[in-house]
Amino acid sequence: MAVPPFTRPHRLLPLFLGLFQGALLLFFALFVTYDEPSAQAEDTNVVANQVYSTFPFLQDIQVMLVVGLGLLLTFLPRYGFSALTHNFLLLNFSMQWALVLQGLLHHFHHGQVQLDLHKILTAEFAAVTVLISVGSILGRTSPCQLLVMATCEVPIYLASEWIIVTCLGVLDVGGTITIHIFSCYFGLGVSKSLFKAVQQPPHPKETPTPRSDLMSLVGTLILWVFWPSFVAVLCQPGDAQHRAILNTLLAMSASAITTMVVSSLLERDGKLSPGHLQNGSLAGGVAIGVVADMAMPPVAALALGSLSAAACVLGFRFLTPLLGRKLTLHDQCGIHNLHGLPGILGAAASVVAILVASEDTSESHSPQLSPAGGNASEVGGGQWGARGASGQALCQAAGLVVAIGASLLAGLLIGATLRLPCLAQPPKQLCFDDSLYFKIQDEAESPGPDSTAEEGALALKEQV
Amino acid sequence: MAVPPFTRPHRLLPLFLGLFQGALLLFFALFVTYDEPSAQAEDTNVVANQVYSTFPFLQDIQVMLVVGLGLLLTFLPRYGFSALTHNFLLLNFSMQWALVLQGLLHHFHHGQVQLDLHKILTAEFAAVTVLISVGSILGRTSPCQLLVMATCEVPIYLASEWIIVTCLGVLDVGGTITIHIFSCYFGLGVSKSLFKAVQQPPHPKETPTPRSDLMSLVGTLILWVFWPSFVAVLCQPGDAQHRAILNTLLAMSASAITTMVVSSLLERDGKLSPGHLQNGSLAGGVAIGVVADMAMPPVAALALGSLSAAACVLGFRFLTPLLGRKLTLHDQCGIHNLHGLPGILGAAASVVAILVASEDTSESHSPQLSPAGGNASEVGGGQWGARGASGQALCQAAGLVVAIGASLLAGLLIGATLRLPCLAQPPKQLCFDDSLYFKIQDEAESPGPDSTAEEGALALKEQV
Amino acid sequence: MAVPPFTRPHRLLPLFLGLFQGALLLFFALFVTYDEPSAQAEDTNVVANQVYSTFPFLQDIQVMLVVGLGLLLTFLPRYGFSALTHNFLLLNFSMQWALVLQGLLHHFHHGQVQLDLHKILTAEFAAVTVLISVGSILGRTSPCQLLVMATCEVPIYLASEWIIVTCLGVLDVGGTITIHIFSCYFGLGVSKSLFKAVQQPPHPKETPTPRSDLMSLVGTLILWVFWPSFVAVLCQPGDAQHRAILNTLLAMSASAITTMVVSSLLERDGKLSPGHLQNGSLAGGVAIGVVADMAMPPVAALALGSLSAAACVLGFRFLTPLLGRKLTLHDQCGIHNLHGLPGILGAAASVVAILVASEDTSESHSPQLSPAGGNASEVGGGQWGARGASGQALCQAAGLVVAIGASLLAGLLIGATLRLPCLAQPPKQLCFDDSLYFKIQDEAESPGPDSTAEEGALALKEQV
Repeated sequence: MAVPPFTRPHRLLPLFLGLFQGALLLFFALFVTYDEPSAQAEDTNVVANQVYSTFPFLQDIQVMLVVGLGLLLTFLPRYGFSALTHNFLLLNFSMQWALVLQGLLHHFHHGQVQLDLHKILTAEFAAVTVLISVGSILGRTSPCQLLVMATCEVPIYLASEWIIVTCLGVLDVGGTITIHIFSCYFGLGVSKSLFKAVQQPPHPKETPTPRSDLMSLVGTLILWVFWPSFVAVLCQPGDAQHRAILNTLLAMSASAITTMVVSSLLERDGKLSPGHLQNGSLAGGVAIGVVADMAMPPVAALALGSLSAAACVLGFRFLTPLLGRKLTLHDQCGIHNLHGLPGILGAAASVVAILVASEDTSESHSPQLSPAGGNASEVGGGQWGARGASGQALCQAAGLVVAIGASLLAGLLIGATLRLPCLAQPPKQLCFDDSLYFKIQDEAESPGPDSTAEEGALALKEQV
Repeated sequence: MAVPPFTRPHRLLPLFLGLFQGALLLFFALFVTYDEPSAQAEDTNVVANQVYSTFPFLQDIQVMLVVGLGLLLTFLPRYGFSALTHNFLLLNFSMQWALVLQGLLHHFHHGQVQLDLHKILTAEFAAVTVLISVGSILGRTSPCQLLVMATCEVPIYLASEWIIVTCLGVLDVGGTITIHIFSCYFGLGVSKSLFKAVQQPPHPKETPTPRSDLMSLVGTLILWVFWPSFVAVLCQPGDAQHRAILNTLLAMSASAITTMVVSSLLERDGKLSPGHLQNGSLAGGVAIGVVADMAMPPVAALALGSLSAAACVLGFRFLTPLLGRKLTLHDQCGIHNLHGLPGILGAAASVVAILVASEDTSESHSPQLSPAGGNASEVGGGQWGARGASGQALCQAAGLVVAIGASLLAGLLIGATLRLPCLAQPPKQLCFDDSLYFKIQDEAESPGPDSTAEEGALALKEQV
Repeated sequence: MAVPPFTRPHRLLPLFLGLFQGALLLFFALFVTYDEPSAQAEDTNVVANQVYSTFPFLQDIQVMLVVGLGLLLTFLPRYGFSALTHNFLLLNFSMQWALVLQGLLHHFHHGQVQLDLHKILTAEFAAVTVLISVGSILGRTSPCQLLVMATCEVPIYLASEWIIVTCLGVLDVGGTITIHIFSCYFGLGVSKSLFKAVQQPPHPKETPTPRSDLMSLVGTLILWVFWPSFVAVLCQPGDAQHRAILNTLLAMSASAITTMVVSSLLERDGKLSPGHLQNGSLAGGVAIGVVADMAMPPVAALALGSLSAAACVLGFRFLTPLLGRKLTLHDQCGIHNLHGLPGILGAAASVVAILVASEDTSESHSPQLSPAGGNASEVGGGQWGARGASGQALCQAAGLVVAIGASLLAGLLIGATLRLPCLAQPPKQLCFDDSLYFKIQDEAESPGPDSTAEEGALALKEQV
C-alpha cells in the first residue's frame, strides 16, 4: 500500500514531541523541586498517610485512563493499536503539558514549584479532557493533529476550570461540568470545524467485529469498576468521600441495568447493541460527579444513574443520527451521548439538589432528626454561605453555560487550525488503519509468495 | 438466521428489569438514607480510616467479579460477549436485590436503613452466589431464566447464611461453606432439574479455541491475584487479617503448582489441559476461606491448597464425565470441581483445625511458648467459648450439611420453574451463540455481495 | 502432528514439581510459623497499619508479574498460552523456592521462621529475576529447562543480592542493579551457552500478528501503570516513598514520549514499531529504581527516563542485530535493551546523584535554603556516613560490576547444564507452538472431514 506524498509530514511528530520534551526538561530544571523533606517524625507520618490516602486512588485512575479507556477505544477492529497508543501518548503529553502550565500559572509568583502527588493528579485531570475530546474525531485524524489539539485544549481547560470553580464557585467534585461537559463540546466543536459540512460516509473499516466489541467491553468494565475512585479522589476525607463513593456505586449500578432495559426496548427483536452497553453503563458515573458529595438521599443517585443511562442510549439511537443529518456533525465514539447528555443531567441535578437541600433545612427546625437536612445545612452553611442556596444553584447553571459556550467556541476555532495541510490528516481510504502509523507485520497475515496454497490456508487459519 | 417464534419472549427481559428498577427506586426513596454525618473531627478520621481500610478491598472484589470472572467465562468462543454481559447484569441485579432484601430483613424494625460500604459488600457477596451457580447452565439458558434464578437464589442464600452463621455459629470468614458450597449445589440442582434426564450432547460451539482459552486464562490470573482480598475483607483487622492474607497467598500458590503436576500426570503425553489450569489454580482459594483466619501452621494452608487443586483436576477428569453418564447431570463450567470439592475439603479442614487447635491448647500449659497454641486458645476462648472445640467442630459439619441440603433442594425446585415456556430457553441449535442476544455485526464477518473474490479474501484476512 | 521420541521427557515436569512441593511441605511443617499474635490492642493497630501499607503494593506487584508481564510475553502469536502459563508457573515456583532458601539462609539460626508479608515480598523479588531472564530464551526452551534455570538462579540471586546490598552497601531501593541487571546478564549468559555458536534463524512462528502485538501492548500498559508500586514498596514510608513514587511517575512518562520520538525517527516513513513501544515505555522504570529515593531534582528523573528509553529503542534497532551477528547472542525478547542498558544508565546515574548531592551539601552552608541540598545531607549523613560520598559512589560502581560479572558467569555455566538431553529442549520446528505443551483444541480450528466446503468456510470465519 503506497502512500508516497503523505509520508513526509510524519516527521512533524518526532520533531514536535522532541522539542516539547526538551522544553519540559528545561522548565523542570529551572523551576521544579520536590517538597522540602520533613524533619520531624510526626511529619513523616503525615506524609506517609497522604501517600496512602492518595496514591491508590491515583493508581486506579491511571488504570482507568491507560487500560480501561484505551481498550474501550479498540472497538475499531483494525485501529486498536493506534487507539491504544495514541490514547497513551496523549495522556502523557497532556499531563506533562498541564504540569508545565499549572506551574507557570498558579505557582510562578511563589518561586519554585514544589511537585507532589496532588499536582500530578490535577494534571491528570487536565489530560482526561483531551482523551475524551479525541473520541469525536478518532480514526480520521493524524497523531500530529491530535497533539496540536491537546496543546490547545489543556490551557483552555485550565482557564475554563479556573473561571468555573474559582470565580463562579461551582461545586463539581467529580468533574462533571469542568471535565466531561467541557471536553465533550470541545470535541464536537473540533469535529464540526474539522470535517466542515461534509458528511462523513460510513467507512468499511469502522464496523466493529465481535472480537473488537469484546475487547471494548472489557475496557468499559474496567472503567466501570474504578469509576468511584475518579469521583471521590478529591473529596474531603471522611463522610463526604464515603458518600461520594456510595453515590457513584449506586449510580453506576443503576446505569448498567437501565442500559440493558432501554437498549433492549429500542430494537425490534429485543437484542442488545454492544455500543449501548459499552457507553450507557458508564453514563451514571459521568452524571453523578457534580452531586456525589452533596446532601441527597441515595435514591437520587439511583435515579440519576438510570436517567443518564436512558439518555445515553436514546442519544445513540436518535440524536447522533439526527445531528449527523441536520448539522453534519460527526461524533465517532458518541461522546455527546456518554459525556454531554449525562453531564447536562448531572448539572441539572446539582441545581435541584441544592434547592431541595436548602428547603429541607429551612423546613426542619431540628436538623438532628433529619439526616439529609442536617447534612445539607452543614454542607450548605459551610460552602455556599452568604451566597445562599438559590445563588449557588444559579452558579451551577452559569457554570454549565460557561463550560458549553467556551468549549464549543474554542473547539470550533481549534478544529479549523487542524485543517492545516502540514498536520497530515489521513485521506479517507487510509482512515481507521493501524498500518498507516505502525510497522504492523503484514507479512504474517498473508502467506509468502513461495508458499503452496495449502500452506497459505494453514497460515490463514493459524492467525485465528 | 431467522428465529421467528422465539423473539417475543425477549420482551420479558426489559419488562422484568424495568419493573425491578422501579421497585428499587421506590424502596430506596422510602427506606434508605446515608449514615448521619459525623460532627466531630475525630469521627471524620474514623470514617476516613474505615473508607481506606474497606474500599480498596471492595474495589479488588469488583475487579474479580466483573473483569476476572467475566473473562474466565469467555472460554466459549462464540459466547464471550454474552458471558461477560450476563455476568455483569446478574452482579448488578443480584446486588441491588440483596440490598433490598437485607434492608427489609435485618433493618426494617430499626426504621431507616443506613447505607454504608459494609452493606454494599455483603450484598456483593450475595451476588457472588448467583454468578457461581450460573456456571452450571451457562450458554444453554436465556437471560430471563438467569434473572428468575437470581431472584430466587438471593433470598434463599440470605436465609441459609443466617441459619449457618447466626444460628449455628459456623466460622466461615471467606465464605467457603456459605457462598461456594451453597452456590455450587444450588447450581447443580437447577441444572439437574432444568435439563431433566436428557443428557446434553456436546455442542459444536462449546469447544474453546486457542484464543478464547487465552482470554479465559487471563480471567483466571486476575481472580488468582485478587483472591486474598476476597477472603480477608471481613476479617478482624490486625493479626487475623494478616494471617488470612498469608494463608490465602500460600494456598493459591500451592494450587497453581499442584494443578500443573496433576494435569500433566493425567494425560498420556504430559500435555496440560487449559481447563484444568483455568480452574485448578483457583481451587486453593475456595478451600482456604473457611480456615483462613484460624490458628493453624502455614504448612496447613499449603497442604490444603495442594489437595484442593488435585481434587479439582481429578474431578474434571473423572467425576464430571461420571456424573454426566450416571446422573445425567450437566455442569457446563465444572463448578462442582472448582467450588464443590474444594469447598468440602475446606469444611473438613476447619473441623480438623478446630480439634487440633484445642488439643494443642490443652497440652501446652504455657501458651506463650507455642504460637499456634496460644493463638488457638485466644481465638477459641473468644469464639467458641462455652460450646467447646468439639461442639464447634460439630457445628462446622452441621453447617456443611445444611448448606448442601438446602441448596440442592432449592436448586431442584427453582430449576423446575425455569422450564416455564415464557422464559424462552433457547433451542439447542441456537445455544452458545452471541448473535441470539446481541446485535453483533455479522456484516463485518462476511464480505458483502458486491465485493470481488479478492476483496472477500482480504476481508477475511483483515478480521484476523 | 506426531512427536514420538520427544514425549517421554515431559514426565520430568510433574516429577520435579511434585517432589518440590513435597519438600516444600516438609520444610514448612518443620520450620515455618506465623508471627506470634499480638496481645495488646495497640499492637493490633500496628499490624493492621502494616497490612494496609504493604498489602496494596504487594497486590499491585502481583498484577504486574502475573497479568502485565504475562500479557507482554504473548507477542508470539502461537505461543501465548505457553508464555502466560510458564510465566505463572515460574513465579510461583521461584517464590516458594526463595521462601525456602531465605528461611534456611537468613533465619535458620534464630530457630522458627516467622512468615509475614515482607518475607513474601522479598521472595517475590527473587522470582522477578527468573521471569526477566526467561525472556532471552522464550519459546525455544522446554518448561523443564526453565525450572532447572529457576532452581539455579534463585540461590545465585540471593547470594549476589547479599554481596551487593549487605556487604558492599549499595543503595538500590528499586532493584535496578540487584534485579534488572543481574537477571538480564544471567539470561544472556544462559542464552549464549545454551544456543552456543549457532545463530538462531528467524522462525516463521515468531513474527507477531496485529492481535498478538495488541495483547502484548496491553501487558506493557499494565506494567507501566503499576511500576511505581514496584519501585516504592521497600522505601521508607514518608518523604522517601513519596519521592520514589513521583520520580518513577516522571521517568515512566518521559520514557513513553521519548520512545515514540526515537522509534519514529529511526524508520524511513516515520512509522512506530510495536516492539519499541512495548519495551521502551518501561525503560524509565528500570533505570529509576536505583536513584528513586535519592536526593535529586525532578528534572533528573525526567532526563533519566528519556535517556533510558532512547537507549532501549536504539538497542533494539542496532545493538541486538549486532550482538546476534558478532557474538551469535540470541535475545528473544530483547531483555538487554529493556533491562541491561537502562539498568547501566540507572547505576551510572546513582553515582552522579551521590557525587552531586555531596557537592551541593558542602557548597551550601545553610541547607534550609536549598531543598535538594538539605535533603541530600540528610540522606547522605544518615546512609553513607563514614564512607563518604565518593566511597559510596565507588560502591555503586562496584555493585554494578559484581552484578554483571557474577550473573554472566553463572548464566554461562547454567546454560551449559540446560543442554542436557533429558531436559527435552524442543526441536526447531516445534518451537513457539502452544500445541507442544497444551491440549489446545485444534479440532475447533479446522473444519471436520464431514463438513461441506461451505461449512468449512463458515467455520473459518467463525473463528475470527
